[in-house]
Amino acid sequence: MQSYSSIKFKEKLLLFNELWSPKVVAEMNDYQFKLVKIMGAFVWHDHNDTDEVFIVLSGEMSIDFRDGLVNIQEGEWFVVPRGIEHRPRADKLCQVLVIEPRGVINTGDTKSALTAPENAWV
Amino acid sequence: MQSYSSIKFKEKLLLFNELWSPKVVAEMNDYQFKLVKIMGAFVWHDHNDTDEVFIVLSGEMSIDFRDGLVNIQEGEWFVVPRGIEHRPRADKLCQVLVIEPRGVINTGDTKSALTAPENAWV
Repeated sequence: MQSYSSIKFKEKLLLFNELWSPKVVAEMNDYQFKLVKIMGAFVWHDHNDTDEVFIVLSGEMSIDFRDGLVNIQEGEWFVVPRGIEHRPRADKLCQVLVIEPRGVINTGDTKSALTAPENAWV
Repeated sequence: MQSYSSIKFKEKLLLFNELWSPKVVAEMNDYQFKLVKIMGAFVWHDHNDTDEVFIVLSGEMSIDFRDGLVNIQEGEWFVVPRGIEHRPRADKLCQVLVIEPRGVINTGDTKSALTAPENAWV
């Protein structure tokens, strides 16, 4: 009998320190699960082809929209609908799990110094 | 300015008590996020068309495979590949987040007393 290993978010989070640079930890069909460490404000952007899920693993973050905002505490999450301009931000270090289809670029259609390599695994 | 609400797993988990009966809490594209409370052993089944993600929110669970097993503790997760027969189980009450495409039946191709209504929201 074989013993398979679960995926441990906490251990994976120890393996990198870059901010705003999503690291893929698993795939399901054509979707990827990515860990991201964030602090400060990201760039305004949208994803025209897909919704995007944010789950806060530790800390807290906000997402600005053109008409409002959402605050997301540890253990909570939010689904950003496709095509909606948004700007993630966090006052202090916040660790987030993002779920989206393979191939999504973190800054969407907005080119930026914060545009991160796509499909970086940890 | 509008204030949007995050989704709070903990509050949603207080809204039902049935075991092995997945409750949808959100959708992303054609995928659903479902909370499930489990205890005891489920039926052997598989899903031929899709992988299935289990994230343990509290407690611990195991998934038996025909050739082995995986133990999943709180905060850990596992991706069951499509077509692989599996049997989730938990000695004590365990609260799980399952991610899979809309329309997936909890017992897969195996009809059982544990087959739950599909697309039940909480």
